[in-house]
Amino acid sequence: MSKQVKKETQLGLHAKREEDFGAWYSQVVTNGELIEYYDISGCYILRPWAYSMWEVIKDTFDADIKKLGVENAYFPCFVSKKALEAEEDHVEGFAPEVAWVTRSGETELEEPIAVRPTSETVMYPIFKNWIRSHRDLPLKLNQWCNVVRWEFKHPTPFIRSREFLWQEGHTAYATKPEADVEVRDILDLYKKVYEELLCVPVIQGVKSEKEKFAGGLYTTTVEAFIPMTGRGVQGGTSHCLGQNFAKMFGIEFEAVDGSRKKVWQNSWGLTTRTIGVMIMVHGDNKGLVLPPRVAPIQVVVINIPNAKLSADDQKALAEGANGLADTLRGAGVRVKLDTRENYTPGWKYNHWELKGVPLRCEFGPRDMQSGNCVLVRRDTGAKEVVPVKDLGLKAQEILATMQKDLLAKAVAERNAEIETILEWKDFVPALDKKKMVLAPWCEDVDSEELVKKKSNEESDGGAAKTLCIPFTQPPLPEGTKCFITGRPAKSWTLWGRSY
Amino acid sequence: MSKQVKKETQLGLHAKREEDFGAWYSQVVTNGELIEYYDISGCYILRPWAYSMWEVIKDTFDADIKKLGVENAYFPCFVSKKALEAEEDHVEGFAPEVAWVTRSGETELEEPIAVRPTSETVMYPIFKNWIRSHRDLPLKLNQWCNVVRWEFKHPTPFIRSREFLWQEGHTAYATKPEADVEVRDILDLYKKVYEELLCVPVIQGVKSEKEKFAGGLYTTTVEAFIPMTGRGVQGGTSHCLGQNFAKMFGIEFEAVDGSRKKVWQNSWGLTTRTIGVMIMVHGDNKGLVLPPRVAPIQVVVINIPNAKLSADDQKALAEGANGLADTLRGAGVRVKLDTRENYTPGWKYNHWELKGVPLRCEFGPRDMQSGNCVLVRRDTGAKEVVPVKDLGLKAQEILATMQKDLLAKAVAERNAEIETILEWKDFVPALDKKKMVLAPWCEDVDSEELVKKKSNEESDGGAAKTLCIPFTQPPLPEGTKCFITGRPAKSWTLWGRSY
Repeated sequence: MSKQVKKETQLGLHAKREEDFGAWYSQVVTNGELIEYYDISGCYILRPWAYSMWEVIKDTFDADIKKLGVENAYFPCFVSKKALEAEEDHVEGFAPEVAWVTRSGETELEEPIAVRPTSETVMYPIFKNWIRSHRDLPLKLNQWCNVVRWEFKHPTPFIRSREFLWQEGHTAYATKPEADVEVRDILDLYKKVYEELLCVPVIQGVKSEKEKFAGGLYTTTVEAFIPMTGRGVQGGTSHCLGQNFAKMFGIEFEAVDGSRKKVWQNSWGLTTRTIGVMIMVHGDNKGLVLPPRVAPIQVVVINIPNAKLSADDQKALAEGANGLADTLRGAGVRVKLDTRENYTPGWKYNHWELKGVPLRCEFGPRDMQSGNCVLVRRDTGAKEVVPVKDLGLKAQEILATMQKDLLAKAVAERNAEIETILEWKDFVPALDKKKMVLAPWCEDVDSEELVKKKSNEESDGGAAKTLCIPFTQPPLPEGTKCFITGRPAKSWTLWGRSY
Repeated sequence: MSKQVKKETQLGLHAKREEDFGAWYSQVVTNGELIEYYDISGCYILRPWAYSMWEVIKDTFDADIKKLGVENAYFPCFVSKKALEAEEDHVEGFAPEVAWVTRSGETELEEPIAVRPTSETVMYPIFKNWIRSHRDLPLKLNQWCNVVRWEFKHPTPFIRSREFLWQEGHTAYATKPEADVEVRDILDLYKKVYEELLCVPVIQGVKSEKEKFAGGLYTTTVEAFIPMTGRGVQGGTSHCLGQNFAKMFGIEFEAVDGSRKKVWQNSWGLTTRTIGVMIMVHGDNKGLVLPPRVAPIQVVVINIPNAKLSADDQKALAEGANGLADTLRGAGVRVKLDTRENYTPGWKYNHWELKGVPLRCEFGPRDMQSGNCVLVRRDTGAKEVVPVKDLGLKAQEILATMQKDLLAKAVAERNAEIETILEWKDFVPALDKKKMVLAPWCEDVDSEELVKKKSNEESDGGAAKTLCIPFTQPPLPEGTKCFITGRPAKSWTLWGRSY
């Protein structure tokens, strides 16, 4: 029966992570009940198992930005053509991907209306009304919403989709130093989401001129890495927009000295991509591996009935399992008691492993007699016999350890894949070994184009680009040359293939 | 100076609620900093003051439905033409208001794609995949999202806009009785939002055939009423969809007995309209009046400096006010200390009254000496001198009383405007006195058309329609005749002009 059920519910994965990562990922997100494919290409359904992780990320980050004095608001999802096109570089960056509404019912609209790809041009015409005096600053707004970018690159659930969920913060300051501080504060919160919630290590740095946000002054980023594919992935970006948008939209204030000044603006965004990165980093051939802090269910309790037991003992076993769930709940653990009688314990083990639940609590007749239960870690498979009376504390402890271990493991795996090089000849070979490359760079825009072109020519693995110029820089000895141009190097820069 | 500032910030309202309700409402929502108008007609910006009320509503309702076992998910904002048109009555209900995306960048899409006006046709093709067996039921999903209805009726902030925020619940059951129970459970939660959070009384009932949800079996509703305009307003609807959609989308399950059956479905939605209704019911000529439970700030503390005070006393006064704010915060009250030196206390009183903050805590030199402060209620203007040591408890108490009083007042005002009639001749005169009308009705569809036509002809005030058939029915004596057709009456029905 177990086998038949297995087929029916597509339990388990057919693809191996190390053999066909794309197929593995697709099976994990669908069979793990995170994603359902949709009849419009590049759009995905976030099922409750995925959405509740987004709720954890959202609640955590939302509380953090509220402490910084950021307020939530909601701006329309539609942008007029005129507003969208007000900032030249910005519109150039987004125009090819904009979805246009041109009709309502059977009526053609007089002017086509864009569905927001991001909200700079939605919000800033209004900022002009709200900001008159230095007393109106800083203005700190955020919204949680959907955005649409009609990309034609290969879509991937969570990682690249035509509609996605995100938060977008938009703030205005009187001075650049204040704006600079916020850019970094937010980037630290993004790092916190990745490392403390999702156990995914990220490298903080600044984007190259070529890779920065269209229309902004500079872009900072948290960059994650997927060892299995050797690809970097931009985890979240915090932009200082400078005064470009202030100029285009006329956002000025009367300073303390009575003079008129333009505001300094930031914008910053974190998306549901977070979840995809987490899956790619931690998942294994049994399915998802969820860090305890984002797991919708942290412990699943499974009782192991035995046909030989008397009816009374069966009842006692069921009640015992119920008690374990209560104990865990009392300890503040998110718990699920799986009492379904039409599935075997083995089927349930597979099912909850596929869904990535961090801890399994097994409870059979012998456990009942000895006053124990068995805890099994999803990440390592380690089993521990635990006296029922210690269950609450012990589960908390193991979950906390697992949260730490997952990050430590991911850090070690990521660190092993960073290769430092000095010359071009070592660049593509490193990429082909699925490495990120740290190389001294002159930071000239043309040289990034050159690297892209040459790396694409010299390997089938695809072009590389800059991921970021890390904030934490190794020493750069005087006279170090750029690995691609031979010009004087300005920084160590992280390069890689990427999502 | 106060006067000059007043002009600059558009403090206060020029329109009177009883003279020009439309202008009053528009001034309240804009000057009260809830709404900013936008350059696309029918779209509005929800500013933090409004959005934080939506957050309270959302958090409350979300916790309640989670207790019912509903899970949150997120489905795409786009619907293919084919899916949207699968259920005939449904598409007919929405088609004229659908916004169509026909272009991405410069490229025409092969098929136009609709922006969701509601998600029945987005979700149900997928429900088919998720529901195979009776064990997959009930399925209870909800999402918080934006929807678009490109209406051409006069738009009104919160009440009728082309894009709005809502939650939409979509559930599937094995049997009709289970679905019926949920329809009412949800309707009770909607009543709870209106009455317990927003202090707005609502009447629960079922919609007429003509007014029910397009494609559904029956629609239940909570109906609010705006005494000042004499208009009803549909507050939220909970629909039993029957098996129509199940038929169209092929959502079937294997029952316990092995037979194949169609599911019974519900959908239910509550929108940001809630906030608009609350404003219309409670606001006065000084501005917003916010029920304490939804007020972003429940108490504003304002110290009253005096130019004659010594520097030390000024400092003590400021510290004292700070202490009051701390005390209130410690009592779990949402508090704001307004220490701005460029505004007079009088200006601040007006400002926070306009924004509807339930309680003002005044603190001047004499208060400081006597160990008191003064609490002033926004709704009644009642002042109370309160010993500083009792402030926390006293504020909690007044806020709780105010929450009750606002509802009681609104109930009384609403009840005074329900007129019971038996004959057509009394119908339009009652409407013209800004009443809702309770009348015995035969429930025939043609008669509702007739009422609409005749009420429109006989008065300039506009047509009336059924608001609902209230669940709570007065006795209907045998032989009572329908007020419009003279046929046998089936129920007492609530009629009115409406938003």
